Amino acid sequence: MCGIVSIAGQKDNASQLALESLMSIQHRGQDSCGILCYNDTITLKKGTGLVSEVFSNWNVQKNRLAIGHVRYPTIGTDPVRDAQPFYVNYPYGIGLCHNGNIVNYCELREELMEKKRRLQSNCDGELLLNVMAEELIDNELDQAIENVMNRTLGSYSAVSIVADSQGKIVVFRDPLGIRPLVFGENGGFMAASESVALDKWGIPVNDVLPGEMIVVDGSDLMRTQLKREHHAHCMFEWVYFSRADSVIEGSSVYQARLQLGKNLNLQHDVDVAIPVPDTARPAALGFAEQHGIPYREGLIKNRYAGRSFIMGTQQKRERAVSKLNVIKSEVKDKKVALIDDSIVRGTTSRKIVSLIRKAGAKEVHLFSSCPKILYPCFYGIDFPSKRELIASRGEIDSIGADSVTYQTLGGLRKAIGLDDLCMACLDGDYPVECCTAQFETLREKEREGCIWQEY
Amino acid sequence: MCGIVSIAGQKDNASQLALESLMSIQHRGQDSCGILCYNDTITLKKGTGLVSEVFSNWNVQKNRLAIGHVRYPTIGTDPVRDAQPFYVNYPYGIGLCHNGNIVNYCELREELMEKKRRLQSNCDGELLLNVMAEELIDNELDQAIENVMNRTLGSYSAVSIVADSQGKIVVFRDPLGIRPLVFGENGGFMAASESVALDKWGIPVNDVLPGEMIVVDGSDLMRTQLKREHHAHCMFEWVYFSRADSVIEGSSVYQARLQLGKNLNLQHDVDVAIPVPDTARPAALGFAEQHGIPYREGLIKNRYAGRSFIMGTQQKRERAVSKLNVIKSEVKDKKVALIDDSIVRGTTSRKIVSLIRKAGAKEVHLFSSCPKILYPCFYGIDFPSKRELIASRGEIDSIGADSVTYQTLGGLRKAIGLDDLCMACLDGDYPVECCTAQFETLREKEREGCIWQEY
Amino acid sequence: MCGIVSIAGQKDNASQLALESLMSIQHRGQDSCGILCYNDTITLKKGTGLVSEVFSNWNVQKNRLAIGHVRYPTIGTDPVRDAQPFYVNYPYGIGLCHNGNIVNYCELREELMEKKRRLQSNCDGELLLNVMAEELIDNELDQAIENVMNRTLGSYSAVSIVADSQGKIVVFRDPLGIRPLVFGENGGFMAASESVALDKWGIPVNDVLPGEMIVVDGSDLMRTQLKREHHAHCMFEWVYFSRADSVIEGSSVYQARLQLGKNLNLQHDVDVAIPVPDTARPAALGFAEQHGIPYREGLIKNRYAGRSFIMGTQQKRERAVSKLNVIKSEVKDKKVALIDDSIVRGTTSRKIVSLIRKAGAKEVHLFSSCPKILYPCFYGIDFPSKRELIASRGEIDSIGADSVTYQTLGGLRKAIGLDDLCMACLDGDYPVECCTAQFETLREKEREGCIWQEY
Amino acid sequence: MCGIVSIAGQKDNASQLALESLMSIQHRGQDSCGILCYNDTITLKKGTGLVSEVFSNWNVQKNRLAIGHVRYPTIGTDPVRDAQPFYVNYPYGIGLCHNGNIVNYCELREELMEKKRRLQSNCDGELLLNVMAEELIDNELDQAIENVMNRTLGSYSAVSIVADSQGKIVVFRDPLGIRPLVFGENGGFMAASESVALDKWGIPVNDVLPGEMIVVDGSDLMRTQLKREHHAHCMFEWVYFSRADSVIEGSSVYQARLQLGKNLNLQHDVDVAIPVPDTARPAALGFAEQHGIPYREGLIKNRYAGRSFIMGTQQKRERAVSKLNVIKSEVKDKKVALIDDSIVRGTTSRKIVSLIRKAGAKEVHLFSSCPKILYPCFYGIDFPSKRELIASRGEIDSIGADSVTYQTLGGLRKAIGLDDLCMACLDGDYPVECCTAQFETLREKEREGCIWQEY
Repeated sequence: MCGIVSIAGQKDNASQLALESLMSIQHRGQDSCGILCYNDTITLKKGTGLVSEVFSNWNVQKNRLAIGHVRYPTIGTDPVRDAQPFYVNYPYGIGLCHNGNIVNYCELREELMEKKRRLQSNCDGELLLNVMAEELIDNELDQAIENVMNRTLGSYSAVSIVADSQGKIVVFRDPLGIRPLVFGENGGFMAASESVALDKWGIPVNDVLPGEMIVVDGSDLMRTQLKREHHAHCMFEWVYFSRADSVIEGSSVYQARLQLGKNLNLQHDVDVAIPVPDTARPAALGFAEQHGIPYREGLIKNRYAGRSFIMGTQQKRERAVSKLNVIKSEVKDKKVALIDDSIVRGTTSRKIVSLIRKAGAKEVHLFSSCPKILYPCFYGIDFPSKRELIASRGEIDSIGADSVTYQTLGGLRKAIGLDDLCMACLDGDYPVECCTAQFETLREKEREGCIWQEY
Repeated sequence: MCGIVSIAGQKDNASQLALESLMSIQHRGQDSCGILCYNDTITLKKGTGLVSEVFSNWNVQKNRLAIGHVRYPTIGTDPVRDAQPFYVNYPYGIGLCHNGNIVNYCELREELMEKKRRLQSNCDGELLLNVMAEELIDNELDQAIENVMNRTLGSYSAVSIVADSQGKIVVFRDPLGIRPLVFGENGGFMAASESVALDKWGIPVNDVLPGEMIVVDGSDLMRTQLKREHHAHCMFEWVYFSRADSVIEGSSVYQARLQLGKNLNLQHDVDVAIPVPDTARPAALGFAEQHGIPYREGLIKNRYAGRSFIMGTQQKRERAVSKLNVIKSEVKDKKVALIDDSIVRGTTSRKIVSLIRKAGAKEVHLFSSCPKILYPCFYGIDFPSKRELIASRGEIDSIGADSVTYQTLGGLRKAIGLDDLCMACLDGDYPVECCTAQFETLREKEREGCIWQEY
Repeated sequence: MCGIVSIAGQKDNASQLALESLMSIQHRGQDSCGILCYNDTITLKKGTGLVSEVFSNWNVQKNRLAIGHVRYPTIGTDPVRDAQPFYVNYPYGIGLCHNGNIVNYCELREELMEKKRRLQSNCDGELLLNVMAEELIDNELDQAIENVMNRTLGSYSAVSIVADSQGKIVVFRDPLGIRPLVFGENGGFMAASESVALDKWGIPVNDVLPGEMIVVDGSDLMRTQLKREHHAHCMFEWVYFSRADSVIEGSSVYQARLQLGKNLNLQHDVDVAIPVPDTARPAALGFAEQHGIPYREGLIKNRYAGRSFIMGTQQKRERAVSKLNVIKSEVKDKKVALIDDSIVRGTTSRKIVSLIRKAGAKEVHLFSSCPKILYPCFYGIDFPSKRELIASRGEIDSIGADSVTYQTLGGLRKAIGLDDLCMACLDGDYPVECCTAQFETLREKEREGCIWQEY
Repeated sequence: MCGIVSIAGQKDNASQLALESLMSIQHRGQDSCGILCYNDTITLKKGTGLVSEVFSNWNVQKNRLAIGHVRYPTIGTDPVRDAQPFYVNYPYGIGLCHNGNIVNYCELREELMEKKRRLQSNCDGELLLNVMAEELIDNELDQAIENVMNRTLGSYSAVSIVADSQGKIVVFRDPLGIRPLVFGENGGFMAASESVALDKWGIPVNDVLPGEMIVVDGSDLMRTQLKREHHAHCMFEWVYFSRADSVIEGSSVYQARLQLGKNLNLQHDVDVAIPVPDTARPAALGFAEQHGIPYREGLIKNRYAGRSFIMGTQQKRERAVSKLNVIKSEVKDKKVALIDDSIVRGTTSRKIVSLIRKAGAKEVHLFSSCPKILYPCFYGIDFPSKRELIASRGEIDSIGADSVTYQTLGGLRKAIGLDDLCMACLDGDYPVECCTAQFETLREKEREGCIWQEY
């Protein structure tokens, strides 16, 4: 998933701005983080943990340009080795980080290694950087990034620094625009995964277009449409991943979540609507309003715990549940409508339903603001293989709820208010049409049990 | 404010339990923390920061007994020097930490120094420990703690380890029971500031009575009522300080907050009820339900920021505000009812009102779920001097709201559902009757500008 | 063994002086170190490693009084828990560290525990501090320290800070004066284990007398002779432990070592005199001059290694040998006289003799500048039990030298130039006459295999 | 100056061997150090401080190949940024570190930057690596390194890892062989700056020839003579820099130093010969033997201090002197012959002469085992500019000795026993003939006050 920022400062405060902006999008990844900045000299610092931990004793240097990254762990990744940004010293000195997933990773990696390039990590950010470096040796920037787009399949919202002469910020987004990327100017320049990073500084928000490259060179900003296919923005940003106060492609996340709740069908008699905190609160509120039942926060999360979804292993997922506490008075002897953002493996849902029953609920009806997740994601969401998706296994009953109600595909589209969405995990319609072969390989590996571990 | 825990484990897992329980009450203090544990050997570890930071590399040792502490900064404290627990090696080896405030601190400190005792910190926990140590040199435990209660005025919920022979847990609470303290048994023993720490392990919750001492010696638990005055529990635990899922003296914090919201008068026409996150959410919901207006979370807090109230300095308070972001669609062109838990200095309220106006609100009506705070607190809440309390200064207009509505004293009592509360900060009726002199001194110092700085 | 310093600064530079002075006597112990200083407030910092490591990031505070310690590991000690100085807060606040060994440790420890005192470490420095604290509760300083001397048997050169009113430095030495202790004044006051610490600042050197206490209170220095037995200074300071440029009790260590070499008998035909670096260099030089043979440094020690004797375990001892490299050209086809300061277990000697043979020496004759070590030391030198002393076992042949020549007792006395020496490890004549019982206990424990491990 | 090692292990212990071997040559640089190792994956760790500090918590990984570096600070260097080894990922993945000085640094750096290569440090090791990387893109190894030798002027003993397929060790030395480099095999392969690193493991020692490249590929070792000029080995290795037990180009450092002392003329009546520790001890001994006067170690150095020459700034140099203590008894009322290895700025000599006078010496005659240093070094010794060389300034009298005697050029040659030495700092005859222009530039910069600061 990950989050990225990129700054060309008015003054020499780019690294300071990068630091604070990364904190605004820290929810996109807590596993590791890094900042690369430039002011004649390149400085790169990255490490495992929260931004506030990794940079706690950072003697913030004066820099004009900076890029930064927060990441969440994917199975098989090494938090130290795979932390972004990455850097190569030839040509120019280039630093890069991205959010997304390169689908033809295996082929490209092999190709680069045949060309004598050594990749030290399993991170596709390092791969993307080396493809870009290769193209920049003999090409101008425009041609180079267009070639990068032609060679790489999948999703990538990327920010980079090219340290030629005075140094440039180069930002680009894959032709399908799968992962989000916004930018804005107010004297300086900022690009980020989410609008909230720009809100903090009062910067007006624009979307980087799919297939677009933006170059910031001194005080000049150049937008170039390099390649364009149909837009296919990941719907899961509205459902779960983005902050409620973000606006993506003009659509408010909070409004979308409220509407997702309103769209949920209610066919049972319930006494109270309770959200699984924190993401599902707007959906539960919309649901409660629509159906005229009381809304209560009957589950309280220890503020000093991480986010359940974002953790890597089953063990962590179990701990995550143990951070929830039930307010008995809101649940006892009641028919509870429990609203969650989505149901992936079903493990968490099973635990929470059981928790609420133990606290004395008469009935527990589970509602998912997202439709059934039936297919794996190859573009950056850490969904498991089909075999682990509970909806795909047809084992929803094992959750132990009295009923389970899902959002409809139409309800999801209506709530977000956009047509050109990637909903491959819901309907199996993957937007990258030309790479059947890669998908076959990936799916085969999926069948073997794990996609990424070999790297 | 601070939070405390105390464990006598069934097995040798006391320090592990202490660690996880401290995380459950981390909201009570993020400035520093510490654990002292015993298993033939005393081990003491404390430091500045969150429990997860200070103990990140802790090689948790096997221990049967443990006490732990989280603290929030009070003006003039040194986070390192004043961190709890404290330890003296004579007699027996005693470790102690507490939550509260010793009102006759100055007199006792002077008395101890005349008796050649050296106090290294400005923390009244070290003072309380030395009084206890002094009394234990020649007295049995019961007599010693009774003497401690007779010599110390103010609030103190204390947990200690006395390392004689097999080692004892000794827990006691001041005769007025100003600060909370609960305990429970399920094979082992646990005491803590809030019930949520016990919920985590499924331990049934009991209140330690005002003036009561509990001793855990091996598998024996002895409760002794040493002294008793009228109960005077701090009302601010329900209003702000405790977690919403805590139950204090049998009264649910969540229910109390909902009711506080319902009790608030509405005399204007408003379009939406918006809470100041996180504490005021139940009150805003109760308010919205009572008056039939929509409830919306129009302010989003960056999850990776601390709590505004808990920070020490004005500067931090300003940063805290900058962690809030407005969802414009919920506010624009609307008449907003903004519900906060309480108004202390008014600084934060002023900033938030301005933030909401900038986002396009037509009107902003501010509601405080707590009555006017007019008097300083001498029992552990870090309220400022009268001169800084905005209600006391009569400058509520300076907040810039279209109207400001406070809870009534009756409404507060009704919402909590208890009679024997300390509401001294609201009505000036301080429950410690016998120590007028001390109050005079403290008030005089208050008039001079600062109470604690001289230490 | 350990080393100690104590400073009463003219200005507020006591901790800085302590730091630099500890580095001058770092050879006395590299296992852990610590400084306790006073200027209204007590500050204590200690840790494992060299002074330059433990205090590398120390923000040296302004302090008027300071005491400091470097220690070397004794079997069974915990480098963290047993690090000195120690501190108690009652009465006054007292910090103390010492060099020596309390022979009636077991009895005193038991006595203190019966009086409800808890000792956290196995270090006799903590014990000495608690005896001193106990005596100071009801007694004046003179009487208190005299009582300490009456209650404790063994060796102790101690420095302490008593933090009453303006604070005092209190320095005292056991009535036999077994371990060294010097002091001097030049405006301020400094006491230290060796004269080199004072040389650094140009301070004239005096010996603290056996049984003497020195108190520095403000600008007053008071010397008090509390108790006196015959002097019994440890001869091993001259042989091995002290720095070559130190002067102890008026006798130059360098001169003594030169003379020790001159005193060694030569009964074979040898080509070259080679010292075991670094301690034996003066003795080898004296030997070479006396017998008219060339002196060569045929063994080179890696400067970045520790001292062999000072390490705790056999494993470390073996590594220590591997830090030595032979200069082949100085050894090949030669009859080598190898001079070492002393032979304890014989392990190191065996390795070095073998190393020199491998490098092509025709004959290797070993000379020890110290007489045969036959008995254990109970006063602070980490000699092993009798069973491990190679001379005591009568297995000198196992070293593999062509001949082994020892210093005579008379030669040793003559070289040092003093009569009142403790030579118990050589002749079994232990200077503490009154405590046969303790010795029996200690020896019994020695027979059981280890003296200290039970604590 | 710096020191380097390179290992191709028999087993997977290359990084462990590198670590211990670096400690053997730690005297060549204490400012920073680093190790790069390879076993499918590249691992690079470097930092400021001693090997024992930087790698204290290193979880030594299993690796088959490793290179390592210790460096001493040169004016204008940044200990973090300029630490070696360096790494580039294209082609192959190459790591390199070296000992020496690239004379045409400025031209090469400019050339590389024009070819779009970014250099992050001021270290010529990074430059050398990038030249090698550039040449390896299109050339075979032999041709590539020959091209490197043709493009770079100056001194460089380099070790590198080329991470193609199974990985290779590539070692090469400049055609003049200015800096030392030895290698040996015993199953595995080791190259190092000094023979002592190989002695430690019992590996027989060979010299890498000037202009030679050695490649270790699996179990094959290939030696290739790529280029050869006359040999010009730096004489200062014997005088000062190498460890006394090293053998360079077949000539024993210890023997050379002894002989340097014997060669020194004595024209005054002196009572004692005293070395400046530690380097001058063999020379002082040779001097004493030759002239029949007693040898005494009248100056004792605190073992816990660094080496005076190796420190970067004047301030450190002064501290270094303060680590010396005089043994008064050896000096008082005596005519002292003080033997030092060399006299560079004269600052240290002045201080030591004064120290000895203060201790009561009647006369102090200073002897330098090295001839007058009159010219700067451009090949890796951190001599200052001509303006700072005391011999060059003609201000030897300012040292304050009663007489100063230098080694003759002939005496130096005779003592080392080799003809083909670089003695440019003594006679101005620089061995790199073809680069007059570069020298002019360097000298001009020297005249401007500092050579390296602009980078």
